[in-house]
Amino acid sequence: MIEKVDHIGIIVRDLDKAIKVYSEALGLELKMTEVLEEYQVKIAFIPIGESLIELCEPIGPGEDQDFLEEHGEGLQHICFRVADIDKALEEVGKKVKLRDEEPRSGAAGSRIAFLDPQSIFNVETEFAERKEEV
Amino acid sequence: MIEKVDHIGIIVRDLDKAIKVYSEALGLELKMTEVLEEYQVKIAFIPIGESLIELCEPIGPGEDQDFLEEHGEGLQHICFRVADIDKALEEVGKKVKLRDEEPRSGAAGSRIAFLDPQSIFNVETEFAERKEEV
Repeated sequence: MIEKVDHIGIIVRDLDKAIKVYSEALGLELKMTEVLEEYQVKIAFIPIGESLIELCEPIGPGEDQDFLEEHGEGLQHICFRVADIDKALEEVGKKVKLRDEEPRSGAAGSRIAFLDPQSIFNVETEFAERKEEV
Repeated sequence: MIEKVDHIGIIVRDLDKAIKVYSEALGLELKMTEVLEEYQVKIAFIPIGESLIELCEPIGPGEDQDFLEEHGEGLQHICFRVADIDKALEEVGKKVKLRDEEPRSGAAGSRIAFLDPQSIFNVETEFAERKEEV
């Protein structure tokens, strides 16, 4: 069901600064940036092997701004790639509580859904289905 | 320099329970467990694609028990695989502060080192060099 780590989500205050550090200090290359008005965030995807780092700067009220205010910058979530998100939610939903019963739209044309973190050791766990790689 | 996401570190209270949830609910298979007396932890490695989930239960005083007491269960760190950790620390150390100036021993025979999280957006970031895959 789960194919790989799709991405690791990190909340930052200043996306441009974060991209610069990941690029200049760690030698990793920016692949794309996107503004998601729906979630009031600017994100950047940085590939590492078969996975991505998702740097996310909140630009307005929402869950990510709440995270930043409560915890400051830092690791926020992990996302697993699945081939068929509807099927994955149906299967996983038998064993753990889902936050999203139905998939919603994510970055770069993906379909995403989150599990209830209380059901999985307080880890914000996302599933993503993508038609093509970022 | 960085080849892939080596693992994602998650702190849990009860390793057996966590292995069971990852296995039964997410369909992921345990590869190995190890007790690291030096760090007072029991860990389990669960492969996902080319990466691993590292579940970690503190069994005595140390950084991981401190994390559990302060934050509860949850996402703790990300680890990037490097081919040559001495060279990686030398390069990265020019740009960001290191917590470990020299590599130390990690799980499954790895050599590991952490960056100073303050230098990298409050993300506990580890490098690991391994002779062979877990």
